[in-house]
Amino acid sequence: AVNGSRLWQSLMDMAQIGATPKGGVCRLALTDLDKQGRDLFVRWCEEAGCTVSVDKMGNIFARRPGRDDSLPPVIMGSHLDSQPTGGKYDGVYGVLAGLEVVRSLNDMNYVTEAPVEVAVWTNEEGSRFAPAMVSSGVFAGVFDLEYGLSRADLDGKTMGEELARIGYAGDREVGGRKVGAYFEAHIEQGPILEAEGKTIGVVTDCQGQRWYEITFTGQEAHAGPTPMVRRKDALLGAARVVDAVNRIGMKYGPLACATVGLMQIHPNSRNVIPGRVFFTVDFRHPDDAILAAMDGELRVEVERIAGDIGLESEFQQIWYYAPIAFDAACVAAVRKGVERTGHSFRDIVSGAGHDACYLSKVAPTGMVFIPCIDGISHNEVEETTPEWSTAGCEVLLHAVLDRADA
Amino acid sequence: AVNGSRLWQSLMDMAQIGATPKGGVCRLALTDLDKQGRDLFVRWCEEAGCTVSVDKMGNIFARRPGRDDSLPPVIMGSHLDSQPTGGKYDGVYGVLAGLEVVRSLNDMNYVTEAPVEVAVWTNEEGSRFAPAMVSSGVFAGVFDLEYGLSRADLDGKTMGEELARIGYAGDREVGGRKVGAYFEAHIEQGPILEAEGKTIGVVTDCQGQRWYEITFTGQEAHAGPTPMVRRKDALLGAARVVDAVNRIGMKYGPLACATVGLMQIHPNSRNVIPGRVFFTVDFRHPDDAILAAMDGELRVEVERIAGDIGLESEFQQIWYYAPIAFDAACVAAVRKGVERTGHSFRDIVSGAGHDACYLSKVAPTGMVFIPCIDGISHNEVEETTPEWSTAGCEVLLHAVLDRADA
Ligand SMILES: NC(=O)NCCC(=O)O
Ligand SMILES: NC(=O)NCCC(=O)O
Repeated sequence: AVNGSRLWQSLMDMAQIGATPKGGVCRLALTDLDKQGRDLFVRWCEEAGCTVSVDKMGNIFARRPGRDDSLPPVIMGSHLDSQPTGGKYDGVYGVLAGLEVVRSLNDMNYVTEAPVEVAVWTNEEGSRFAPAMVSSGVFAGVFDLEYGLSRADLDGKTMGEELARIGYAGDREVGGRKVGAYFEAHIEQGPILEAEGKTIGVVTDCQGQRWYEITFTGQEAHAGPTPMVRRKDALLGAARVVDAVNRIGMKYGPLACATVGLMQIHPNSRNVIPGRVFFTVDFRHPDDAILAAMDGELRVEVERIAGDIGLESEFQQIWYYAPIAFDAACVAAVRKGVERTGHSFRDIVSGAGHDACYLSKVAPTGMVFIPCIDGISHNEVEETTPEWSTAGCEVLLHAVLDRADA
Repeated sequence: AVNGSRLWQSLMDMAQIGATPKGGVCRLALTDLDKQGRDLFVRWCEEAGCTVSVDKMGNIFARRPGRDDSLPPVIMGSHLDSQPTGGKYDGVYGVLAGLEVVRSLNDMNYVTEAPVEVAVWTNEEGSRFAPAMVSSGVFAGVFDLEYGLSRADLDGKTMGEELARIGYAGDREVGGRKVGAYFEAHIEQGPILEAEGKTIGVVTDCQGQRWYEITFTGQEAHAGPTPMVRRKDALLGAARVVDAVNRIGMKYGPLACATVGLMQIHPNSRNVIPGRVFFTVDFRHPDDAILAAMDGELRVEVERIAGDIGLESEFQQIWYYAPIAFDAACVAAVRKGVERTGHSFRDIVSGAGHDACYLSKVAPTGMVFIPCIDGISHNEVEETTPEWSTAGCEVLLHAVLDRADA
């Protein structure tokens, strides 16, 4: 029912934009390359007969009318931005699977009852601008518009400035409209489906997250004549927190995840004791109470470590959302889709955050996972197969029809 | 006998070039600011009647003729480059104290028996280009010229290219000439003189150093759906080495120093497990056997830590020099200078490396230390006093006369 090779070709075409030598993609949010990716998507949607609109957060909506166009739309979507060393499928798969559903409906001359839309959410990755999923968050009313537009990268450039610069500061209000259902197809980004030989993950829940920013300030001094006992080494403190974060993750395992992904050392010179270090912590768990326990341990460790070395510490939780359960009817629609198409499947909890998490606050929401090789994502070697890609798109089509014609 | 306020004024004038808001200096080797500092020094030397020449490593020599100009010169010197968040005196003091000796000799119309030179050594700090003291090292025959010119910064620009760009790739051969004596005045960069209320440090020895570059490679992966036990987190490995380096420094204390000053995390994104980390280690000790023991422990720790996490490790000692004892006659000349000027003093071992360490390989060498406030250096708040500055210059003058007229 869907054209899997057309979908695969579109994935490969999009992957040219920001392609890296190792076969991945670097298309950071609101860069010139992100603009190129958006432009290509908009052109494809217009060629498919959709009407395209852009909101004030740069979220793009490509609409295919329904028989009763006054009904709230069923939206499919994900994101086009990537990590610095990202893969070809993370986000892009959900956007282009949505486009393939529209193209297939066109091929079949099929008119859905409710309108169908394909959405691209701005800055899902949270790499250039923190936090992740910020624009679907504004759409869902979790963040206000000012907050969204004022998110700044490490050079101080804001999302508002960068949206204007690349021509994607749209005039449509962000959110505030009724959505019939939201479906997001995505690669799993973890090892479970492939390991168990399942083609489809029916996503029932998404684990919660807490993100932190920590700055340790000690005193820059000469690495040679400064005795060990007089030092206030900010990197020593940060290093001990990295180890503590790992300990906390292991302690609450196997479901807990705990990561320090970003660190900036000042002045970063071989023979200078680091005077200031900025770093981030990313905690996840499907159980909110355990996530809170991890938070408590981190606070104790950071204070203890800073105190031991004599560092000043600034500690901020910059992002939090509780674990999410998706809508029963949407999950059922996905499951029915798998049954109809005959693919193997299992229920699964998402380890990554997705725009679907925020959409679930304002719309019945479901997700479809397909496997990725070795569970590897946020890596240039990220890979899936054309068969899995086609299967996920088929399931997405069925789930969308289930809701759009309900 | 010297004009202390003229010396202080010159220090303040030079500190304008690359001045930072916090009262320090950022004048990295072979940048446009380094060129400005060099140009000012050359102008001052020419105004003082010196003949200026530049060698192929960009080392500058300002020569004041002796009565017998065929005698090997007595050279005073140090460096004008700084750390990214450096101070106004580190290096600059030794250069401008040398210039003040020349200006004072001019004021007195005093003709020394041997010629006297003031030297500026290129890239002493080792911050932009590693290792430190590389150009005095080439002068002393410790490194060959190709090695020196091919040192590259983190962006891949070489010293040779950058010397040509700023117009300081001189035509004079590097070293290979007889030096009667070398004296370097410097701030202590540590806390001892100030704590003991001494104005002058007679430097007898310099501790040895070993510098390392380590790259840990693991696997980038998503911070959310990647279970803790499947991770190969390169930053976790680097963090554990930072802690191990500190443990080694404490264990061999109070004289050992052990520092990780520089670290680069790849891809450095909040929700990506770091796949690659590059970092440096700086070990120092006045006893070569202990420095070797520290080296041995580091190698064991790095291998153990990488093995525990499943990281590939590249490990390289990129720099080593054994502890150095300065020339007895030069040390005696400094001590006589202190006795004649009546300042309080103590013998001291240098914790920092200095161009004097390499000069000692090819010339009788001595050093004069003055205190700095709270022992702080490699920091924008680095400070000394006009009184100490004048005292050190007086001692330098006497030491130089002792050798130039010997
Ligand atoms: N799907 C995905 O990679 N999202 C990025 C946000 C997160 O780190 O969970
Ligand atoms: N004096 C000084 O700061 N030298 C830099 C080289 C070193 O780190 O010892």
